[in-house]
Amino acid sequence: MKIAVDAMGGDYAPDEIVRGALLYRASGGEADLVLVGREQELRRIIASSVPPGITIRNATDVVAMDEHPSSALRRRGDTSIGVATEMVKHGEADAVASAGNTGATMAAALLVLGRIRGIDRPALCGLFPTSQGKPACLLDAGATMDATEHNILQFARMASRFMERLHGVERPSVGLINVGEEPEKGGRMQLAAHALLAGAEDLNFFGNIEGKDLLKGVTDICVTDGFTGNVLAKGMEGVIDVFVDGIRNDIFGGAWGKIGALVAFPGLRKFRSRMDYDPYASAPLLGVAGVSVVTHGRARANMMRRAIEVAERAVATRLIEAIGHGASTTAA
Amino acid sequence: MKIAVDAMGGDYAPDEIVRGALLYRASGGEADLVLVGREQELRRIIASSVPPGITIRNATDVVAMDEHPSSALRRRGDTSIGVATEMVKHGEADAVASAGNTGATMAAALLVLGRIRGIDRPALCGLFPTSQGKPACLLDAGATMDATEHNILQFARMASRFMERLHGVERPSVGLINVGEEPEKGGRMQLAAHALLAGAEDLNFFGNIEGKDLLKGVTDICVTDGFTGNVLAKGMEGVIDVFVDGIRNDIFGGAWGKIGALVAFPGLRKFRSRMDYDPYASAPLLGVAGVSVVTHGRARANMMRRAIEVAERAVATRLIEAIGHGASTTAA
Repeated sequence: MKIAVDAMGGDYAPDEIVRGALLYRASGGEADLVLVGREQELRRIIASSVPPGITIRNATDVVAMDEHPSSALRRRGDTSIGVATEMVKHGEADAVASAGNTGATMAAALLVLGRIRGIDRPALCGLFPTSQGKPACLLDAGATMDATEHNILQFARMASRFMERLHGVERPSVGLINVGEEPEKGGRMQLAAHALLAGAEDLNFFGNIEGKDLLKGVTDICVTDGFTGNVLAKGMEGVIDVFVDGIRNDIFGGAWGKIGALVAFPGLRKFRSRMDYDPYASAPLLGVAGVSVVTHGRARANMMRRAIEVAERAVATRLIEAIGHGASTTAA
Repeated sequence: MKIAVDAMGGDYAPDEIVRGALLYRASGGEADLVLVGREQELRRIIASSVPPGITIRNATDVVAMDEHPSSALRRRGDTSIGVATEMVKHGEADAVASAGNTGATMAAALLVLGRIRGIDRPALCGLFPTSQGKPACLLDAGATMDATEHNILQFARMASRFMERLHGVERPSVGLINVGEEPEKGGRMQLAAHALLAGAEDLNFFGNIEGKDLLKGVTDICVTDGFTGNVLAKGMEGVIDVFVDGIRNDIFGGAWGKIGALVAFPGLRKFRSRMDYDPYASAPLLGVAGVSVVTHGRARANMMRRAIEVAERAVATRLIEAIGHGASTTAA
């Protein structure tokens, strides 16, 4: 297996991305890696000779984190994410992993790899730690704005394959994000989606869930349109920022607070490990015809290592084929 | 001024609601209050003679917190929220305040009071404390599911009057909740709403904001449709629950944690006061032709006192007339 790593994508690229790749290999990762990016810079970071199982592929350009994705890709042919995705298309790599501009990774996947047959629109998958200690998957987290009920049904099917293959969940439960539990809640789209999901015998449909049920782990999968999913994910992130700031500065900020933090250290460590986001930051784009894993722009080496592991697992468990199979056997 | 208080609405009704009314009067509140509910029960709670400025109006029925609002109101003529809202319609009270089923309060307001002329759909307003120490207003938090761009424009105008009159904010800034800052972001509705808001000269339109900007206080007002607003508000609430639980049980739960909490007490108090939600839990329904203030179902006496104060202020500052004036002068 060979995985193309977008070495120039992310806030801490290329240094932390390269370190993540080295970490993956050092900790027993068996896939060969191709670091895609500015060769000279990458060689400088590795310093000594490039270790076995890792090669470098030159790509001179980069899509910036705040750049408009598809116009950047169209304008410049030699971006690291573009070249890495082309490698998957041409069979030179089995998967691509990137911490770069998510829109650009999605645009490259759609332009270069295209969609899986039977899937009309792609979805971005957000993983969350839940209070039940298992991950839950929120999608669409921002790929398809005006999703129809038919898109939602496809999202639910793709996420079911994802949770089965990558997280070993049997018959993952699906919740439809709504404003209340009753089937008659929501707007036009939610009403129609509820009916479709309830009628799909290949799904383990739980029913409607609310925004607050996400982190409680009420269902393994939480489906909604890309607009709502994106606003919800960022809104929850905003609250986390306020609390982390409050714990750090208000509670443990003053002199007594610093002593309190030392005394309460075991609890703080427990809390921090329960809130550890690293294992949840990476997920494959769903609906595109190849494995393309995105991770958080703030990824450092350890998070990047996990992104590569997710790509490896998606290839090994044949996720794309499973999604394609589900889409073709259930299409009307 | 006279305010009708739904004495039977809320998780801790009628006891805490009655105590809230007494607290309002005891702390200098000048409006006369009418407690609407089961007279015998209410008299039993007050025990001694009913204090001056407070009267009781009998209503035998209650809409339960989990009941379907409009069918309950149509089926039963003598509910506390129905009777209290009728009093506003007939000029026997200037406003109503309730901690009961929000859907029922909204349904009663729409059925009995109707909409303000020029306003097509009502909106529920959620107030949030921001890291800048001032409140921000999120609407619609759940009244109008499939809001159009024209509804969004009206929401922005109503909220502007609300923030001016009740929170003394001059030219409150309006942000449109979206998936990114650029004007071309979002779905069909957001694109159309952005154009309408940007063209409205009576508004102080900031542009697009993201879910995480809410608690940062980037704008005074955050507008969106009732579906997205409700999911977002509940999602943020869910994160708060997880963190409060984590602080209580993980960090300060064990033996060392309990000692740590004692040592870090000043910081904990600071954090708790910054997170105090009581002043933010109450807001008038926007778009209905009369002052109807809803507060959180978990309201205890102090939160209920604040709800009555919000009602008093909405009446004193002539909020309904201001909304009506804005709607009629700006209509096409």
